Amino acid sequence: MDRRKILLLIFDGLGDRPVAELGHKTPLEAAPKPALDWFAANGINGLLDPIAPGVRPGSDTSHLALFGYDPYEVYTGRGPFEAAGVGITLEPGDIAFRCNFVTVDEDMKVLDRRAGRIREGTEELAKALDGIKIGRVKVLFRAGTEHRGALVLRGKGLSPRVSDTDPHEHGVPVPEAKPLVPKAKGTAKALNAFTRAAHKALKDHPVNQERVAKGEMPANLVLARGPGQFPDLAPLPEKYGLKAAGIAGVALIKGMCRAVGMDVLEVPGATGGLDTDMVAKAEAALDALGTYDLVVVNVKAADGKASEKIRVIERIDQMMAVLKAKLGPEIVLAMTADHSTPVALADHSGDPVPVTVFGEGVRVDDVSSFDERSVAKGGLGRIRGRDLMPILMSLANRAEKYGA
Amino acid sequence: MDRRKILLLIFDGLGDRPVAELGHKTPLEAAPKPALDWFAANGINGLLDPIAPGVRPGSDTSHLALFGYDPYEVYTGRGPFEAAGVGITLEPGDIAFRCNFVTVDEDMKVLDRRAGRIREGTEELAKALDGIKIGRVKVLFRAGTEHRGALVLRGKGLSPRVSDTDPHEHGVPVPEAKPLVPKAKGTAKALNAFTRAAHKALKDHPVNQERVAKGEMPANLVLARGPGQFPDLAPLPEKYGLKAAGIAGVALIKGMCRAVGMDVLEVPGATGGLDTDMVAKAEAALDALGTYDLVVVNVKAADGKASEKIRVIERIDQMMAVLKAKLGPEIVLAMTADHSTPVALADHSGDPVPVTVFGEGVRVDDVSSFDERSVAKGGLGRIRGRDLMPILMSLANRAEKYGA
Repeated sequence: MDRRKILLLIFDGLGDRPVAELGHKTPLEAAPKPALDWFAANGINGLLDPIAPGVRPGSDTSHLALFGYDPYEVYTGRGPFEAAGVGITLEPGDIAFRCNFVTVDEDMKVLDRRAGRIREGTEELAKALDGIKIGRVKVLFRAGTEHRGALVLRGKGLSPRVSDTDPHEHGVPVPEAKPLVPKAKGTAKALNAFTRAAHKALKDHPVNQERVAKGEMPANLVLARGPGQFPDLAPLPEKYGLKAAGIAGVALIKGMCRAVGMDVLEVPGATGGLDTDMVAKAEAALDALGTYDLVVVNVKAADGKASEKIRVIERIDQMMAVLKAKLGPEIVLAMTADHSTPVALADHSGDPVPVTVFGEGVRVDDVSSFDERSVAKGGLGRIRGRDLMPILMSLANRAEKYGA
Repeated sequence: MDRRKILLLIFDGLGDRPVAELGHKTPLEAAPKPALDWFAANGINGLLDPIAPGVRPGSDTSHLALFGYDPYEVYTGRGPFEAAGVGITLEPGDIAFRCNFVTVDEDMKVLDRRAGRIREGTEELAKALDGIKIGRVKVLFRAGTEHRGALVLRGKGLSPRVSDTDPHEHGVPVPEAKPLVPKAKGTAKALNAFTRAAHKALKDHPVNQERVAKGEMPANLVLARGPGQFPDLAPLPEKYGLKAAGIAGVALIKGMCRAVGMDVLEVPGATGGLDTDMVAKAEAALDALGTYDLVVVNVKAADGKASEKIRVIERIDQMMAVLKAKLGPEIVLAMTADHSTPVALADHSGDPVPVTVFGEGVRVDDVSSFDERSVAKGGLGRIRGRDLMPILMSLANRAEKYGA
């Protein structure tokens, strides 16, 4: 039988809990969404625990699982994916951190963890940090979106087991990085030396002089968190024998895609914010399926308010209507989320997310609505993030037989 | 409470996907099967992933899982089960291969991978190979069904990590076995020496002279694949404290049963083909339950065509009608499949299979049909192959307590 192609749609943060102001419905239950429901009605449905029941996933660990990896085996921290997202090609042994540009006072107390929400000039500031040498350790630094950046320490014998230099609160002094295991001593020392060098390089930087002149907070330091090493994993194209591409707005998810060996496709208008052009993403995905065997699309779906989330769901539904109209029979489509983000919590939760698989040969069940409670009665039952790729590989008639 | 006995029925390849020509029903959904449905209606039902969701199981890995073992821990290849199936008692350190009698030309090119579908004379040919010595390596060889056979290399320091000598296609030269790891060098050398010795022993063998005289293809070589070592596992009777027997037609499944320490019962008329006498198997199983605590029956259920598969299901149903009439209250019965074999795919798929457990004390659910979609709503939910034996042990009031 013919091998099929796979389209995996990940609605970032879509799952929710019943919301009182929606009459104890979830946003998915409350929103009109004929196209999403059509796929549910013509597919097989279930609940998916991205990592395991009750485990609150990060976007990074969840994407690893949805890509078929065991995050408990390959995940060491968010830094490497952030670094890959801003275009740093990591080497084995590199330690990568997520960073914020921040504002500190003369006593190195943190005044603002986002440097007055700086948006411009960070690339120039990053250049002042990129290439710094701390003894034998080489520093790589790139600016990310808004106040974010990625730091990589490259050298011999480094370890990701150091504490953050980001205190995660305001008004406190910048903490020293501490080794969490004895062999991380040198790394902590290098990171602390970098913190001092960064302050020196940034405090009188023209970008900051201009900011101060305009009454804005200077981005006079970068603080690091989420250290990790490049995951030692089999690239997805190799693992599954698939030519694979990812479409995403935010750097972290692009980094996730790159880290597992996917090509990252840039879609004009797809920013990763809620203003992202979802229909453009859908069209780009359909296009990409001409040359790729697997296309993953990440769409931001969470927001602080229930009413806003419902509006996002309506826009996702427009995207699904495009796919419904144009999808060929050679495609197996899956739609799910990387985690629930209940509006009442405004953060990731451990609640499972809906999952629908649509395509030729699927055992269509009698679920007719794509929402948390309806899909719980579906034919997929309750699966885990890591199960999804094998299920899609099997339905795409691409799975290798285990045994004979 | 009294300990009960367990009857485990494995319908080989039974699961399917919706079939267009059956009005998008699966063969199980389309077939009349009152007895199977009676067991579903009076039992507890669910879906079973033989290995894990989406994983395409081999019959060997799946049976290991259904017998309660973790194939990822104990499985090294199909050869050992094939060898056990034809009656070779494997010793630790033995390397076993599945073999085909094949036809090669004078340049050792493969003309026919089944030696003109040879059916007779293979036992004599096998005798010419059995006992060959390659240095310090002893060769054991037995004929299997039709063109099949099993090869065992017995000696010190052998490894299963060698490539096949079967090219898996026609018109190409017989490939040399290659070591896949350095320590398999000696094994590859021995296997290649055996290939040459086998050709020498077979090419002018009277059986082949006769075949050539009749215009048939000579079985002038054997080619090996699927090497493996005897699994290092606790025998099932020991693991579960059960006297266990298996009833199966095909050599591989008999080998699986033997490999885990079950007695294999021969049932006249039970060939393993679709012409197998299923009612005879049921009667033999009921008989065996007089002396055994666990009886496993494997019944072939897959076929190339939907209409044929429906006919097989009807015959399985007749077998179930016999069991329904004669089964005593001391029996816990389970019926499931080792894998799905969708008619559209004509090969194993990663789709889960139905499972029903019937017997005193079972939490009977409201499923009333034994098919892929109905059982998905059953009380067992979605379980894995390895879960089944513990569930049956518990319902048979034989499980040991874990903890106090």
